[in-house]
Amino acid sequence: MGEGDAGRFPFATAAVIGLGLIGGSVARDLTAAGVRVLGADLDRNALRQAVASGAVHLPLNDDLTGLEEAEVVLVAVPVSRARSVFEKIAPQSRRASLVTDAGSTKAEVMCAADAVGLGRQFVGGHPLAGDHRAGWEASRRGLFAGQTAYLCPGDADPAAVALARALWEGLGAHVSEVEAEVHDRRLAWTSHVPQLLSTSLARALEAQGIAPDDLGAGGRSMTRLAGSDPEMWAGIIGQNPGPISEALGGIETVIQRLRTAIEAGDEAAIRGILEEGKSWSSQSGD
Amino acid sequence: MGEGDAGRFPFATAAVIGLGLIGGSVARDLTAAGVRVLGADLDRNALRQAVASGAVHLPLNDDLTGLEEAEVVLVAVPVSRARSVFEKIAPQSRRASLVTDAGSTKAEVMCAADAVGLGRQFVGGHPLAGDHRAGWEASRRGLFAGQTAYLCPGDADPAAVALARALWEGLGAHVSEVEAEVHDRRLAWTSHVPQLLSTSLARALEAQGIAPDDLGAGGRSMTRLAGSDPEMWAGIIGQNPGPISEALGGIETVIQRLRTAIEAGDEAAIRGILEEGKSWSSQSGD
Repeated sequence: MGEGDAGRFPFATAAVIGLGLIGGSVARDLTAAGVRVLGADLDRNALRQAVASGAVHLPLNDDLTGLEEAEVVLVAVPVSRARSVFEKIAPQSRRASLVTDAGSTKAEVMCAADAVGLGRQFVGGHPLAGDHRAGWEASRRGLFAGQTAYLCPGDADPAAVALARALWEGLGAHVSEVEAEVHDRRLAWTSHVPQLLSTSLARALEAQGIAPDDLGAGGRSMTRLAGSDPEMWAGIIGQNPGPISEALGGIETVIQRLRTAIEAGDEAAIRGILEEGKSWSSQSGD
Repeated sequence: MGEGDAGRFPFATAAVIGLGLIGGSVARDLTAAGVRVLGADLDRNALRQAVASGAVHLPLNDDLTGLEEAEVVLVAVPVSRARSVFEKIAPQSRRASLVTDAGSTKAEVMCAADAVGLGRQFVGGHPLAGDHRAGWEASRRGLFAGQTAYLCPGDADPAAVALARALWEGLGAHVSEVEAEVHDRRLAWTSHVPQLLSTSLARALEAQGIAPDDLGAGGRSMTRLAGSDPEMWAGIIGQNPGPISEALGGIETVIQRLRTAIEAGDEAAIRGILEEGKSWSSQSGD
């Protein structure tokens, strides 16, 4: 992706609401490609930094005056705040060709967008680019290159879907269209439960008086996600309880099977589970 | 650590039995510091590569002729094979000042060393330097720099303990002396259970038809250990079942508590557990 690569995005002005890891990184790539970016963030300091860095051309005030200019509006806030942000932007984004989001759950978010009247210009979105870091300081150019971006078109206008696809493909992501409920069930397994396992391990280690620095490389890799933002994750979990509960139950069953085999000294069963895990790992195209 | 840094190790000749990630890396650092290294490995190809790379000066045959020369003997084989290797080397290492190992469990290993008559020249050892990779190809210079190396002196001769300390400190590790049972209980939490959680997650994902490439960065970090060597890990688990079973039970309790809170929609409880995990993470000196 070259600097000032105008024409890579089929729109000239975009608004990014929420300048954290995801929104900040989108703003950086868009401005670098010549798109005019309007930006908003509750954290005035993050907003100031985004303007100072050149990633945001026009900071929006709390009343979002100026938002009407944006052809594309991306909401990149914790999912627990998506509905209130949608309510606020709806009146000022009626002329936008696309309103989209970047939240880790999709069914409730789509429902909220519908409820506040965003209607057929709204396409749900979710780039798989988060990690345990958060905030404007963690944002960077090229964050989405080679990553998957899910799109949930729902009842959106095909032109809005095409624009959402152009946004994420322009940012270097592979776009995958999926229904919101399928997305949420899948993410429970691929993202939400891994986060909760890391948190559970950290919580259990703390109860044992074991500190992060007592771990080797393996233990550190398994507890890194425990450092993620609790507010963001409480919101995600609150919006996807059924699939997460089911997936956690599935993991518990495997752990119990392992523990039973260990207590019985059943080496064949232990080795079998270890070999299944290794065989799964070796499917990776990496 | 400079090349040919003779005198950094208070011995001139060492034998390394098992040239995998750990043994291979020790051999590379020792030869670079001017120590003469004898090497053995069941895998003739690994042994040939170690000789070709210059990390091993003298390859030992299956009958270990020549082992008598070594002042220090390091056994770096999967813990399930430690006892049979100890039996084999005992007759030829009576004149060695130190026989030590690098296995991930210590109580059974110390017991095996005692049973075959290695006696007061034996010091248990365990450098925290493993990850999901294995074998000679994964070995490298400087693997132990800044890492912890546990030593379990047991009834060893103080001179043997001092030599074991000099070995690991010379390799750049921080040495921590600990009783074998304390080591094994601690490692159940810091290493063995993290491995089993990664394996359990991989096993559950496989049952869902989800492949490694479907994961984001977080999910990938949580399943990386699942690619570890099943034989090595079956051996470790078989030698530490009590502490591992207890630790797995502890993790299950936290997961169940989380699942109950999620099913009840108890956001305060969910957020509390997430905040505990984050607070634990922020203790890190990194």
